[in-house]
Amino acid sequence: MNKTSFLFIIFFTLNFFAVVAEGASETSKPQSETEVVASLRDKALNSHLAFDILESLTTEVGARMAGTPQDALAVKWGVEKLKSLGFDKVWTEPVTFDTWIRKEEYAAIVSPYQHEIKITALGFSVPTPEQGIEAEVVHFKSIEDLSQSPKDSAKGKIVFISRKMERFRDGKGYGPAVKARSNGAVEAAKKGAVAVVIRSIGTDSHRLPHTGMMRYKEGVNKVPAAAMSNPDADLLTRIFARKKTVKMKLQINSHAGPKYTSQNVIGEMTGSEFTNEKVVIGGHLDSWDLGTGAVDDGAGVAITMAAAKIIGDSKQRPKRTIRVVLWANEEQGLVGAKAYAKRHKDDLENHITGAESDFGAGKIYAFASRVAEDNLAVVKKMAKLMKPLGIEYVDNEAGPGPDLIPMYELGMSVFSLRQDGTDYFDLHHTADDTLDKVKPENLAQNVAAYVVFAYLAANSEQKISR
Amino acid sequence: MNKTSFLFIIFFTLNFFAVVAEGASETSKPQSETEVVASLRDKALNSHLAFDILESLTTEVGARMAGTPQDALAVKWGVEKLKSLGFDKVWTEPVTFDTWIRKEEYAAIVSPYQHEIKITALGFSVPTPEQGIEAEVVHFKSIEDLSQSPKDSAKGKIVFISRKMERFRDGKGYGPAVKARSNGAVEAAKKGAVAVVIRSIGTDSHRLPHTGMMRYKEGVNKVPAAAMSNPDADLLTRIFARKKTVKMKLQINSHAGPKYTSQNVIGEMTGSEFTNEKVVIGGHLDSWDLGTGAVDDGAGVAITMAAAKIIGDSKQRPKRTIRVVLWANEEQGLVGAKAYAKRHKDDLENHITGAESDFGAGKIYAFASRVAEDNLAVVKKMAKLMKPLGIEYVDNEAGPGPDLIPMYELGMSVFSLRQDGTDYFDLHHTADDTLDKVKPENLAQNVAAYVVFAYLAANSEQKISR
Ligand SMILES: [Zn+2]
Ligand SMILES: [Zn+2]
Repeated sequence: MNKTSFLFIIFFTLNFFAVVAEGASETSKPQSETEVVASLRDKALNSHLAFDILESLTTEVGARMAGTPQDALAVKWGVEKLKSLGFDKVWTEPVTFDTWIRKEEYAAIVSPYQHEIKITALGFSVPTPEQGIEAEVVHFKSIEDLSQSPKDSAKGKIVFISRKMERFRDGKGYGPAVKARSNGAVEAAKKGAVAVVIRSIGTDSHRLPHTGMMRYKEGVNKVPAAAMSNPDADLLTRIFARKKTVKMKLQINSHAGPKYTSQNVIGEMTGSEFTNEKVVIGGHLDSWDLGTGAVDDGAGVAITMAAAKIIGDSKQRPKRTIRVVLWANEEQGLVGAKAYAKRHKDDLENHITGAESDFGAGKIYAFASRVAEDNLAVVKKMAKLMKPLGIEYVDNEAGPGPDLIPMYELGMSVFSLRQDGTDYFDLHHTADDTLDKVKPENLAQNVAAYVVFAYLAANSEQKISR
Repeated sequence: MNKTSFLFIIFFTLNFFAVVAEGASETSKPQSETEVVASLRDKALNSHLAFDILESLTTEVGARMAGTPQDALAVKWGVEKLKSLGFDKVWTEPVTFDTWIRKEEYAAIVSPYQHEIKITALGFSVPTPEQGIEAEVVHFKSIEDLSQSPKDSAKGKIVFISRKMERFRDGKGYGPAVKARSNGAVEAAKKGAVAVVIRSIGTDSHRLPHTGMMRYKEGVNKVPAAAMSNPDADLLTRIFARKKTVKMKLQINSHAGPKYTSQNVIGEMTGSEFTNEKVVIGGHLDSWDLGTGAVDDGAGVAITMAAAKIIGDSKQRPKRTIRVVLWANEEQGLVGAKAYAKRHKDDLENHITGAESDFGAGKIYAFASRVAEDNLAVVKKMAKLMKPLGIEYVDNEAGPGPDLIPMYELGMSVFSLRQDGTDYFDLHHTADDTLDKVKPENLAQNVAAYVVFAYLAANSEQKISR
């Protein structure tokens, strides 16, 4: 059976049950928890709400890098959107951080052939001198090769790291590849380099480089760091195959900026019984500056806002509160998440569990839990109600989404709703992260899964813990 | 049967025949024309030569817009490559034209929301004033809507034309869409506009705008013209759906340059009998400046050079000469083609027929002829030998490739070898036109088809004419 007809059958079946369930509610016989959740799930599946929220965010705000004027606009948008959706409580909590300002960036291969190449500075890169750097390029196939090379192996040169990221559904190619981005500048500087330019950490073949954070290390020279698009990296690799001396010109004017205070934006749909206890869902509100942050992480923002809204609209609210957190400045170091954990650490016991949506807009195909053994009954309920969505339960070994790491480290229980990330790293941190890449039906499936998870977690007989 | 296994069977079958044919030649029994051509075709199918030529052009020259320093490099590359491939004669013929110089280009939506948008100036656009233009944007769904709108409908405004190009295998979506690019500036200026920015003439969804030629008209105000990427056009369309006043900032510093003389680069594999009569194949050597011109038209250059080389290496050369022309400056108005026709018009009768490869790097699925009725026997032979390549004969109504238009108009017979252009307009005239988009096996199939066509045309008993 192909994907489309499979989906069609699911939709048909679920619509049918939804009609039955609604018919039942009209007789005003009280519905079972399963009936309520199945009905909300199917409502979510047929809802365009998440896509509409995402359309609004990407159209009316767009790129919203932490510390830019668009960061403030995004906060304003978040507050207004939560209010207009009828959240019971909406507020913000300050998050302060250092900023980085992107300016002009330019690179070209100047010898043995001339090619302008598409680069983007990595987050927090220092600038080059104003007139740029022109230097010989030295090629390493991986950051490991660079680290293991002799001292002075890159002396006075620009380091090029050509390692290619591999494509996987679960994104497991990212971890091994991203080290070149995070640590490339430090490792290059240790070998005497004047700059580092890596192959983009991404799986596409477009002339759109992938940005993202890099870091410096105290005591090691700070050199400019950039990523080139994958076709440009292919080109440079082909030139190196000719065994010629390669020279590059690199000009980056980006630089550190002043401190800035943004906000975590928080909305709640109050529970019917234990109002102080909450299930935390959300996505991060900031994005990188190159695209409009549709898949990273407008999708997560939209999915979780829509799920809470659908639960909030239910006549039978769950016992506990659904809290949506639109995290500030995830991209430049989980800054909003850390501020949140610091502020709420004494309220940890009331954060019964949570999940972050931050892996794009693909369908969810699996979920995992990290809860105390005696909470597994509710996980089983979730599994049963997620199965018609094509979602399989994995195990009780879930890790947290990025913005739940600080709370998880304090002891909070977490869930992981795993999206198909096959295409995610085609778009991640590029100018191509735009709304046209998002399928409304995939977003709706995500919302349905979050509805099942959040409702059942919030309505659990037993308070969930780890 | 899927495409891959179909291809596999073709390759297997042809390899088998190739082995048989080679075995036969070892007995030094003279081969029939059909045996020779089948054997060369299968050699071409298994050859990496075209891809190697294309790799060389895109790596060692790269972008080569007419009139730039890279134009001269490309000419030098062409001469050297033809010589190194062992062409019997290699020469160049001058082609003089006006140039256009691309400089900085920038656009942003400034109201009601702020978005930087990705634009590229269209070829021969005039610049904006140095500080740019900031003006209200007026939206037209097509150039026809613009033309039919009241006089002054765009007075003082920037015209946005949002028509979307449709995707077809034969590229028939291009014609209706490209009018906005060619004539948008004239039609906009007629309605009082200060600039025109169109949705890119392309079928992709990437943040990479498509450039291409535009023209002005005497007596009509010359306004700057640019194309925005398709995701940006989607965004702007969504903003217009909100019924708000939209303002845009546009800054284009590109401008006309001095006259320049480039060269048509020509190489010949001399025929065995009627050396003065020739079959003309080729592609255009220039490209736009944004990408490295891999599919437009490095592929055509590589395919036809490789086909001539394989025929030239044959122990049984065809009766007539194979002439490869690497046309100068196709993109900015078929300038090389016109110069060639002017120069060679008195030798028209010796140009027995020809074909240009200028539609990317997809497989050929069909071919058509435009020859005198009494030449159809040789066309039938071609059809028979192309069939195993998955190529069907269409009819005797072929039109010329762009650079053969001037010779065709003088009366030359032509062939059209039709490539699958489904993805061609994803890349056409963008930064994304790079080598990674080209499949070596597709290029090889093209070479095989050109070998069949060129050999049989050149070896025809009867001289082909129209
Ligand atoms: Zn993210
Ligand atoms: Zn072309």
